[in-house]
Amino acid sequence: MLSKNQRKLIASMAQKKYRDLHGLFLAEGPKTVSDLIDGGIHPRLIVISNERPAPDAVKASGCETITVSASQFESVSHQKSPQQLLALFEKPKHTINNSAIHKELALVLDGIQDPGNLGTIIRAADWFGIHTIICSNDSADVYNPKVVQATMGAIARVKVAYTELPEYLLHYREQSTNPIYGTFLDGGNIYQQTLSQAALIVMGNEGNGIRDSVAEVVSHKITIPSYTKGLPGSESLNVGLATAIVCSEFRRRIS
Amino acid sequence: MLSKNQRKLIASMAQKKYRDLHGLFLAEGPKTVSDLIDGGIHPRLIVISNERPAPDAVKASGCETITVSASQFESVSHQKSPQQLLALFEKPKHTINNSAIHKELALVLDGIQDPGNLGTIIRAADWFGIHTIICSNDSADVYNPKVVQATMGAIARVKVAYTELPEYLLHYREQSTNPIYGTFLDGGNIYQQTLSQAALIVMGNEGNGIRDSVAEVVSHKITIPSYTKGLPGSESLNVGLATAIVCSEFRRRIS
Repeated sequence: MLSKNQRKLIASMAQKKYRDLHGLFLAEGPKTVSDLIDGGIHPRLIVISNERPAPDAVKASGCETITVSASQFESVSHQKSPQQLLALFEKPKHTINNSAIHKELALVLDGIQDPGNLGTIIRAADWFGIHTIICSNDSADVYNPKVVQATMGAIARVKVAYTELPEYLLHYREQSTNPIYGTFLDGGNIYQQTLSQAALIVMGNEGNGIRDSVAEVVSHKITIPSYTKGLPGSESLNVGLATAIVCSEFRRRIS
Repeated sequence: MLSKNQRKLIASMAQKKYRDLHGLFLAEGPKTVSDLIDGGIHPRLIVISNERPAPDAVKASGCETITVSASQFESVSHQKSPQQLLALFEKPKHTINNSAIHKELALVLDGIQDPGNLGTIIRAADWFGIHTIICSNDSADVYNPKVVQATMGAIARVKVAYTELPEYLLHYREQSTNPIYGTFLDGGNIYQQTLSQAALIVMGNEGNGIRDSVAEVVSHKITIPSYTKGLPGSESLNVGLATAIVCSEFRRRIS
């Protein structure tokens, strides 16, 4: 049986101010919840329908678990198709480890707005073994339930940190000679560039691309060429797709 | 002023049976509507809010155009954020031109279910100059309003045809020695394969991949390798992302 306060807390997770206030976020479904527990994220409260057996990760977590009826579960779920299991997790506080990041590839997101795009980018990063994503403070929140669900558990493995972007990039450039790549419509053909496996890759906002103050710190402008041979249309590739293609092209070089 | 029948017709476009019955589909927004007109798709009825000037393509189309108030427009729009312009278009009847298709790269979709994924795939095809997509009859409908909007006008340039898949592929194999590529978890590393620019590329259903009867006709199994080094998780890449990466890798070879 869920208390009125527990119900209110679960409902409040749709809003960033309450996620920040409580330091919690919501995840739903056996795969996502299990992946997060296995990834070392701490569950604070687990709610499960009495029609579903608890996954092993949930049993082993030692976390308070409340069993409810299927109809009660549906009344608290944020999903259109409730998956009979949800959990509130403590938001991990990811700090950027500079000595580690200088040795690997990391993504930088400059003002990505759409939660679906952020989720897509995190999944692509996970697939290609990129462990850190640095977002400008005005980017979509990784703990938005839509992002959490879109990542299919990948946020258990990819650290997403928020910071003031131009400042961070200037600091990176002072400490490291690694390239800072950025995608621009007028960049060099990515397929023909030398690509370093220790670098930052900056992706820009859906409508406006990379803002000027960030673009100034980019050392290598790259682009994914279009193959429409000057035909009209297709003037942009969705930023989620573009990020996946860029990650693929970087990793291909070590394949 | 819209008649009651016109309102009903616009509302009915959410359902495939009415799109099929009337041979029409709905598109919204100045960019998508203009792209479709410019791409030679015939508009049958255009509805525009009196708060927006008609784009040039609409003016030049000679199509019946009804001007309504902004609030009337909102009452017929299928969009959460109405863009003051919508049109009903005649569904083009795309037939598969075999002599043309044997000389180029085409995508084959085996049971793609999600309208958003189909829209993503059409945009990726458009970017990479792939002009034909052949879908199994049980794939999502390209004229679903969600797909139309997700393609951002790319359906004006990419032909999407529906057919019985195993039969079509058997026929293709009889008439051509071109490779038929398919993506499988146990396929060969795509980065290390010889890739032909005259071929079919088969992508499978979101949950089940390529069905057996289709897999039997695939001549080259390929895969996008993961870079997670045996870590748990990330066991699949969304099919929209995977298609974009595969198209990128094929086109890179002629870059």
